[in-house]
Amino acid sequence: MIMLGFGKLNMAVVGTGYMAGKMAETIRYVSEVRPYAVCSRSTDRAYEFARKYGFKKAYGSLQELLEDRKVDLVYIATPHSEHYEQVKMCIEYGRPVLCEKPFCLNAPMAEELLALAHEKNVFAAEAMWIRFLPFAGQILETLRSGIIGEPVMLTAGLGYNVGRVRRMLDPDLGGGALLDIGIYLLNFASMVFGDDISRINAHCTYTALQLDEQESITLRYSSGRIAQLAVSMVGVSDRRAVISGTKGCIVIENVNNFESLTVLDSDHNKIASYKRPGQRTGYEYEVRACARAIRDKRIEVEEMDHEQIISILHMTDHIRSQLKVRFPQEMNEQELEAYHKFRAEHTASRNKETAAPAADRAEEAGAAGEGTASAGADRPAENGETLLPAAAAGTEKGSASGGDLPEEPA
Amino acid sequence: MIMLGFGKLNMAVVGTGYMAGKMAETIRYVSEVRPYAVCSRSTDRAYEFARKYGFKKAYGSLQELLEDRKVDLVYIATPHSEHYEQVKMCIEYGRPVLCEKPFCLNAPMAEELLALAHEKNVFAAEAMWIRFLPFAGQILETLRSGIIGEPVMLTAGLGYNVGRVRRMLDPDLGGGALLDIGIYLLNFASMVFGDDISRINAHCTYTALQLDEQESITLRYSSGRIAQLAVSMVGVSDRRAVISGTKGCIVIENVNNFESLTVLDSDHNKIASYKRPGQRTGYEYEVRACARAIRDKRIEVEEMDHEQIISILHMTDHIRSQLKVRFPQEMNEQELEAYHKFRAEHTASRNKETAAPAADRAEEAGAAGEGTASAGADRPAENGETLLPAAAAGTEKGSASGGDLPEEPA
Repeated sequence: MIMLGFGKLNMAVVGTGYMAGKMAETIRYVSEVRPYAVCSRSTDRAYEFARKYGFKKAYGSLQELLEDRKVDLVYIATPHSEHYEQVKMCIEYGRPVLCEKPFCLNAPMAEELLALAHEKNVFAAEAMWIRFLPFAGQILETLRSGIIGEPVMLTAGLGYNVGRVRRMLDPDLGGGALLDIGIYLLNFASMVFGDDISRINAHCTYTALQLDEQESITLRYSSGRIAQLAVSMVGVSDRRAVISGTKGCIVIENVNNFESLTVLDSDHNKIASYKRPGQRTGYEYEVRACARAIRDKRIEVEEMDHEQIISILHMTDHIRSQLKVRFPQEMNEQELEAYHKFRAEHTASRNKETAAPAADRAEEAGAAGEGTASAGADRPAENGETLLPAAAAGTEKGSASGGDLPEEPA
Repeated sequence: MIMLGFGKLNMAVVGTGYMAGKMAETIRYVSEVRPYAVCSRSTDRAYEFARKYGFKKAYGSLQELLEDRKVDLVYIATPHSEHYEQVKMCIEYGRPVLCEKPFCLNAPMAEELLALAHEKNVFAAEAMWIRFLPFAGQILETLRSGIIGEPVMLTAGLGYNVGRVRRMLDPDLGGGALLDIGIYLLNFASMVFGDDISRINAHCTYTALQLDEQESITLRYSSGRIAQLAVSMVGVSDRRAVISGTKGCIVIENVNNFESLTVLDSDHNKIASYKRPGQRTGYEYEVRACARAIRDKRIEVEEMDHEQIISILHMTDHIRSQLKVRFPQEMNEQELEAYHKFRAEHTASRNKETAAPAADRAEEAGAAGEGTASAGADRPAENGETLLPAAAAGTEKGSASGGDLPEEPA
């Protein structure tokens, strides 16, 4: 890429977790940026991260980092619940910002932040990496070629067993399967079928703290198309997406990091296939897109502009409203009180549970209904993330669904 | 198989279409039965079929066929709408009967027929062939082995472009995607997750005559599991089913005729795989199961007993009720009148459409919304089946969904 004589952008990372490390690895492969600063509430962790990945500066707070005028691009990799305040601070300090998905907890928050970005003329983007992968172009080109005829349906599934990872289970941190896993599928559907949605319907099962654990989402489009999305934070899926057309289908392996594309004809014969070309971590594309936009003095990227960020969050708001999944950050005083009471009761029942003899616990777990999912089933830790203690075995699993809302979400 | 000295069963086929031919091909591979008689409303077609497949007798009506006391097993391969009357006649004549799926249009009809089978002590079965395939045992065994941990979710998609085949489009013939295609997925889910369903939700798009064209079905089980099913009569799917567990997933290729099974671990590495052993047409297993049951003087098969036939039809009734898809056979006089009026208007608008200049038609089709699916898109004939003329281009595509019904379907 021609850099037109400009220097590299000084990149800063907020947070020191798994995704922060992934981004630090990525930066070394992107000629447009260099590792510059990192911040964490723990200064020790910030120093360790800086040393490990060759960052010049380590800060103990976001404010200190933002006061450093040499910072050219801030990447935020903290829990969902922190995004709103942190992005806001970046914009107020005039620092270009790339924030991990979801950009924030809901659409009104995103609308406020992006209006501020416009007002202050500061670059802001969401790190929804699949939007930036070059293979997305291959998928759309194959679709446009007409090889599968008229596309009529899309199915996609994404599931990981992260059902005991703390941030997934904690409403305070914006937990639940939708915002962490389902959001990829909504973005994929949006890339392929657009946003002219006439109806959304979602159905789910819940964690002990009433977050969405597994969900089935159906999008119907004005064109008559259907997208059907399966999301799970407790079960491992094949990560496949299929675009069904009148003459055949396009099969995409790994909807979370496109790996290959296969075209089947109406007799299910393979008639074309493409493999993704080599990539580094895959996050290099989003970083390059940000660097390009900042160089060009744009405040958004083409791959996922501000309107699209808001549009996807309107969908997640719509779905959460049907599923009755809300975060404490969205509650009024009365609701908050009820939430804290419910949470305290849950913790008490869990502690009582933990104190009971193991044999009794097993029996109770059995009585709760085949011992599936979050009802006390023992799952392994993944990626060394913090685990919550096993949920109270006696907690009943619920399920719910909602009707159509009258307005379109986008 | 030890035949214990009994002779072969004389098998009769009702209908001379695609499935009748498949069954005639199958009979030659099954030592327990022999081709004996065929009937069709067209005596010519019956004779031709008998000659082609080596059947001894050709009849011009079901009654004549049933009056032949040498008939040991009747296989029905006529449109869905005929099943109820034809199965009833078989039972009344005391002739064992294997009827193509769906066994009949709805659960009350099946309950009546199967009660009659009990009363008259006559064998009756539904030809839901995937229930009889030996590979189903391999799937259940793999699941029970615990290799994917606790199963939590199931997804399956089945779609073919048969959207201009007459019987699919005609309410009088019990058309629509659910009873012809979706029923396989309901049976698959039932085999894998059982029938302890707490909620069913379905959403669909419609054909010009208000039949379900594509649908998204979500089943939630009392255990907290979810099954998500995607059905289409206009789009080609990958026919894949995935059972997601806490430690990995089982991927099944071709949920309509199991071809292979692959187990992926939580890192998506392939850790086991099985291919289906060789088979003839695949229908030999259902025929053998019927022959065994008849020899043993049973009136149902273990693979799909009468309770299961009714249970699946309760599910399709429940789904159709949400989707507001009903057949004329289920309507009262007033509803029938409205239906015939609607149908006549549709035919008139279609004829007017056909008379309009081609260029205008194309423009109207475009105006109807991206020209997808049944809205005038030209699709090829499949399997030489009768095609309806293209649906009226101006007909708006609708979509709908229903809430949860209070009772469980099974």
